[in-house]
Amino acid sequence: MMNKTVEQLLSHQSIRKFQNTPVTEEQLRMIVACAQKASTSSNMQAYSVIRITDAELRKQLAALAGNQGYVEQAPEFLVWCADLYRLQAAMRLSGGETASIEPTAENFLVSAVDTALASQNAAVAAESMGLGIVYIGGIRNHFREVTEILQLPAGVFPVFGMCIGVPDQEPSPHPRQPIDVVLHENRYTSGHYSSLMAQYNETIRSYMIERTGGQRNANWSEMMNVKFRGPQRMLGETL
Amino acid sequence: MMNKTVEQLLSHQSIRKFQNTPVTEEQLRMIVACAQKASTSSNMQAYSVIRITDAELRKQLAALAGNQGYVEQAPEFLVWCADLYRLQAAMRLSGGETASIEPTAENFLVSAVDTALASQNAAVAAESMGLGIVYIGGIRNHFREVTEILQLPAGVFPVFGMCIGVPDQEPSPHPRQPIDVVLHENRYTSGHYSSLMAQYNETIRSYMIERTGGQRNANWSEMMNVKFRGPQRMLGETL
Repeated sequence: MMNKTVEQLLSHQSIRKFQNTPVTEEQLRMIVACAQKASTSSNMQAYSVIRITDAELRKQLAALAGNQGYVEQAPEFLVWCADLYRLQAAMRLSGGETASIEPTAENFLVSAVDTALASQNAAVAAESMGLGIVYIGGIRNHFREVTEILQLPAGVFPVFGMCIGVPDQEPSPHPRQPIDVVLHENRYTSGHYSSLMAQYNETIRSYMIERTGGQRNANWSEMMNVKFRGPQRMLGETL
Repeated sequence: MMNKTVEQLLSHQSIRKFQNTPVTEEQLRMIVACAQKASTSSNMQAYSVIRITDAELRKQLAALAGNQGYVEQAPEFLVWCADLYRLQAAMRLSGGETASIEPTAENFLVSAVDTALASQNAAVAAESMGLGIVYIGGIRNHFREVTEILQLPAGVFPVFGMCIGVPDQEPSPHPRQPIDVVLHENRYTSGHYSSLMAQYNETIRSYMIERTGGQRNANWSEMMNVKFRGPQRMLGETL
């Protein structure tokens, strides 16, 4: 049951500091090839990956993602996009009448899920090569600007970015919630949430104190309240 | 660059026929533990997994998912749910004022992405143990009924199911699109789509002919047109 792949998955940490060593062209293409083998709804493959090699573009994207310096500095930065445009374009090649892909919540969801399944395979592949990664949800902060500078056509939507490179840090493991609040049987149950999540709150408090050298004393519930009291990302009109 | 994990990712095939051998409790919990270590936006962990062990429930879910027999027969069937309910519930434990998680497109997306990243880690973990999996997007066909029979509270949304078990088939590799239509550099480009997708169409036609013993002669564009001409799943009102 325990094997190298499981060990690797269990030891994942997001990496935000990278050595200067480049990711080779062969590594990058293998990482994307692994992404492509992930499950995809009805074989739609509704995603695209934009690799950002242009330094000026990197700088702009780093700023749009909330001044995350590693977006600029990482050896590779990929923007993972949900993509219904290629699907629609290819459907015109069939010769017969072309059906239309409507901008429904289902189509938005199915393409975002396709994107995430592929990107997670990429993350696992990269880590198996000794590389580290971090997802950058921050590119949705200003998704219109990102859409514009990457020249994404209608039907293509930036879901998240991903930095890849050789790790130059060893972050301590970020504790996850107890498995028994995540895994349910036959129906959703929540009667045990208060006690288990109160314990988790203290686990996170200790983790934060340790990670920040005592600078930050907050539990998970408190941090989540801070997050959701702040300004929220809005994507509304794109659906 | 090539290693066991990469080899495994590249050889993924969805499995729809399983041996009767049960997935052990230890395997299942390790698979979910691996899922939990996937990246999650701001450590929100906005997902839950419902393991379906009740035979009657399985039968209902199999019917709702479009009469997919393997939903009923697979040793394990998991329903992966986007979950903002636990997050909101835990936020009430902080003592201070509780912020409210609004039902925005962003929150829907971020929880669905969290779910997909976790589930793909589960898929990779399962396959590393010699198990096979298939995703069941069909549970969204009737998401209201699924929500009801699994007693999902507001804020919890079934994204897809997953069958797991020891494979009892060896499907031939399902060809993916050429990497050069998926991977872009610095901006989205599509001038090369027609020629490469026309080639892919013929690759899929050969695959379909071989897989169906000549019964089905269709290329990818044609199949996608058939799919999008048919009745479409609608989730609209949940956003």
